Amino acid sequence: MLTSTVVNAYPLSSYTFGTKEPKMEKDTSVADRLARMKVNYMKEGMRTSVEAILLVQEHNHPHILLLQIGNTFCKLPGGRLKPGENEIEGLKRKLSSKLAASSGPLQPNWQIGECVAIWWRPNFETIMYPYCPPHITKPKECKKLYLVHLSEREYFAVPKNLKLLAVPLFELYDNVQRYGPVISTIPQQLSRFQFNMVNS
Amino acid sequence: MLTSTVVNAYPLSSYTFGTKEPKMEKDTSVADRLARMKVNYMKEGMRTSVEAILLVQEHNHPHILLLQIGNTFCKLPGGRLKPGENEIEGLKRKLSSKLAASSGPLQPNWQIGECVAIWWRPNFETIMYPYCPPHITKPKECKKLYLVHLSEREYFAVPKNLKLLAVPLFELYDNVQRYGPVISTIPQQLSRFQFNMVNS
Repeated sequence: MLTSTVVNAYPLSSYTFGTKEPKMEKDTSVADRLARMKVNYMKEGMRTSVEAILLVQEHNHPHILLLQIGNTFCKLPGGRLKPGENEIEGLKRKLSSKLAASSGPLQPNWQIGECVAIWWRPNFETIMYPYCPPHITKPKECKKLYLVHLSEREYFAVPKNLKLLAVPLFELYDNVQRYGPVISTIPQQLSRFQFNMVNS
Repeated sequence: MLTSTVVNAYPLSSYTFGTKEPKMEKDTSVADRLARMKVNYMKEGMRTSVEAILLVQEHNHPHILLLQIGNTFCKLPGGRLKPGENEIEGLKRKLSSKLAASSGPLQPNWQIGECVAIWWRPNFETIMYPYCPPHITKPKECKKLYLVHLSEREYFAVPKNLKLLAVPLFELYDNVQRYGPVISTIPQQLSRFQFNMVNS
């Protein structure tokens, strides 16, 4: 508990990237997204979503893999759990849907590690908090970020409408304008880990 | 590893606060502080400091205990380790120096818990980062934040020149102007814990 966990970070060049069929966003606007969230809440209650922090290294500095949609918006791979679905199994399902080949032997070995952050959405609005705000008894979403321990070599199949970027921690840090409050504070949440930069 | 750690937060009212002799700051300006840091670096190498996150609750929302100097500047209790000193023992020593009665039976039982963040100072400047920046081979300071698990009842003796404040997470969050980058992102770093709000 008191010693810091060592996490291996392998070079970006040790991974192989291909493409697969597009994965379109379910919503075309923020308003659509919030409206769909509301409909689902009425049916299923609080939404639980899980997202993955996939870590690689370049120049001995940790980088995070982000999916870029269009020219600016970036997100972590992951998504919404089915009602009652186990978080770990649900995150593996979402990661395979976003980043694994549709078939074949090259399926990544998703090793889901530490939960590093939990964010709460109190209302059907875009703003989230790293705590459930006082007086909120029925939050609308709980989003959990997990560190995923990648093996030394993997094949990722990226949907054709998305780009997979390796973004350095120093680019994310203090950059809420570009990456939003959740992704821009990943450097602080990872700071407690000791990274073992593996060079191949 | 995959389930979140449960942390008890007891009401602020279950703790007792007294005063003790003043603990003056060693430096009267930021320039003095950086100059002293440089002198110590020449003698002892990289400075390691340890700071404590002491958690209480009010209205079922987590609050952090901060020491206020003057009217605005707030800091976490803690300080610099002696060369070679164990981090846990050093943090206990610093906490007793800042918050325990100078003598007597009411010594707090400091239970040092999880390391929640590590910050690096690359140069003899005020700016710190939650990672060691690329190309920095000789950082000047490493600051580690630990969660301290308080017992249900404790007596704290606060130096007369300081005020001890219980600040809610919602006040710290997104408030870098008031609390600085280290303290203002404590809510994100604690988000992975499950708080058990104990009511007395």
